[in-house]
Amino acid sequence: MRIALDAMGGDHAPHAPISGALLALSELGPAHSIQLVGSTELITAHLDELWRGEFAPLRGEQERVTVVEAPEMIEMGDKPLAAIRSKPRSSMVVGLKLQSAGDSDAFVSAGNTGAQMAASTVLLRLHAGLSRPAISTLLPTVREPMVLVDSGANVDSSPEELCQFARLGSVYAEDILGRTNPSVALLNIGEEEEKGSAVVKKAYEMLRQSDLNFQGNIEGRDIVSGGSNRGPVDVLVCDGFVGNVLLKFYESVAALMSTLMVREGLDRSRVANALRGFDYSDYGGAPLLGVRGVSIISHGSSSPRAIKNAILVAQRAVESRMNEHIGRRLQAAESEIA
Amino acid sequence: MRIALDAMGGDHAPHAPISGALLALSELGPAHSIQLVGSTELITAHLDELWRGEFAPLRGEQERVTVVEAPEMIEMGDKPLAAIRSKPRSSMVVGLKLQSAGDSDAFVSAGNTGAQMAASTVLLRLHAGLSRPAISTLLPTVREPMVLVDSGANVDSSPEELCQFARLGSVYAEDILGRTNPSVALLNIGEEEEKGSAVVKKAYEMLRQSDLNFQGNIEGRDIVSGGSNRGPVDVLVCDGFVGNVLLKFYESVAALMSTLMVREGLDRSRVANALRGFDYSDYGGAPLLGVRGVSIISHGSSSPRAIKNAILVAQRAVESRMNEHIGRRLQAAESEIA
Repeated sequence: MRIALDAMGGDHAPHAPISGALLALSELGPAHSIQLVGSTELITAHLDELWRGEFAPLRGEQERVTVVEAPEMIEMGDKPLAAIRSKPRSSMVVGLKLQSAGDSDAFVSAGNTGAQMAASTVLLRLHAGLSRPAISTLLPTVREPMVLVDSGANVDSSPEELCQFARLGSVYAEDILGRTNPSVALLNIGEEEEKGSAVVKKAYEMLRQSDLNFQGNIEGRDIVSGGSNRGPVDVLVCDGFVGNVLLKFYESVAALMSTLMVREGLDRSRVANALRGFDYSDYGGAPLLGVRGVSIISHGSSSPRAIKNAILVAQRAVESRMNEHIGRRLQAAESEIA
Repeated sequence: MRIALDAMGGDHAPHAPISGALLALSELGPAHSIQLVGSTELITAHLDELWRGEFAPLRGEQERVTVVEAPEMIEMGDKPLAAIRSKPRSSMVVGLKLQSAGDSDAFVSAGNTGAQMAASTVLLRLHAGLSRPAISTLLPTVREPMVLVDSGANVDSSPEELCQFARLGSVYAEDILGRTNPSVALLNIGEEEEKGSAVVKKAYEMLRQSDLNFQGNIEGRDIVSGGSNRGPVDVLVCDGFVGNVLLKFYESVAALMSTLMVREGLDRSRVANALRGFDYSDYGGAPLLGVRGVSIISHGSSSPRAIKNAILVAQRAVESRMNEHIGRRLQAAESEIA
């Protein structure tokens, strides 16, 4: 398996992606290689340093890391569609083209998320029946993490789109997290069937009639407990507007709590230990679901460890044939309706 | 000033409301009285016990507490509109009727929020130009608390309604929190003007052209820090769907963090101290904005302290003439448009 990594993407590029790639080498196993995409000059200089220093013990694995030239770079502030058109030699576009040409099996980036979505949609294309891809992120809970779909790729989603998110999220939960018959819940302002916006009420009805393991509505307060009194939830479905607000808020509130505890004089390492389940670098990457291929979105502030974990998510996505399963699941739903 | 309190509302009724009322007595000052609305028999028995025990030192103030008979009770699971119609002698309806009849200045309840909204709308009526009231809640931040409007009274809000929320929240921030020229922000998935759903984009445009102190968009991650790099935010505007999910999530996540810290063996009282800004009982009550009167919504799980604080919010709302100011602000906006 060949995993392409955007060496220029993220707040700490190229250091974090390149170090993350080398960290992933031992965990990936000998049959797998990494393609570092970006400025050859910059990447090579960094690699040389890392092979001589921190990663010297892994020097025998050097041939599993290749460099793919991409002289352009999409900046965080660039407009997605304009950027992928005006920068065809950017690490984002070149990295994804490797996959569409059959020269790579997955792509990972901590760069401009909008550009990654746009480039993945254009270059890998979407499964039949989808109008847009969705981002699935893991939310920490007191139980196992919950899959949040959509966490920001879409706003103004239709009831049909919310049902697609449920299907995409279910395959993710099965293939990447190993959940059996994943339970799906709809994020709402009350547990009762008649609650919520017009779109959410209609989605409830459609999900209830679907072949998914639908558990009904859950509220904001049920997220950290991992479900409601009706049982654990594997997949939480919502429009990307709500999902994005919630995700960004969750990330910030854990950091705030930690700051407040340490400021109160509590022991930093024990506070960190208490909050270890809330470390986003554990989860690494959020797959962009719905594209015909594997495109993993990493947080802009990703550390080497977060990048390594994103690469491992990419590996699981390829090995489990998630993409193929998504295609099949969507097709089954289509024929059910027809 | 006479403040009516729903003695039957909330998970810990009648104990919490009645104790909260007595706690409020000293802070309210001698000119103000409390009307306990509910089953006279139940309330009197409770009061007798409290005057003989915990509140014996305050027995000289007994005449500032009156009891208003309301033999019926709206349950938490009752359907709002049906309940206020079928239970005209409930504590909720009787308490609000005192105000519409001019026999009371404010109403506080920890009971069924939907029923309180419906009964307040029907009995107190709305200011001209409004189609529904909005709930404003305080969100703890590392700076001062932020006013969230709407936190659950409305779903599928129009751009015009989001602008009304901004107006209502601004008066609240001025009158109850004492903020000068309160800054308003729109909750969105990015800071840029062109971000968000169709409704939010239109609301951005309308807020920009309004007389409000509009600061633009803020993201989920900016809430706990109390604003973005453009400065502090006093009023955060969003649809009630997003607001409700966010609020319930926020309440639950602080409790979770505390549990995790204590489980890790960290000192319970220091953890509580670090999180003291996140104690919702400090904030007490959320005014239902837009009705021609004062109706304060308390959390169903309110403690006596939370009820006391809700009563103090009611007092500030009456003293500052918030209701009158809201009417004037809405009228000014109407004539600006016309």
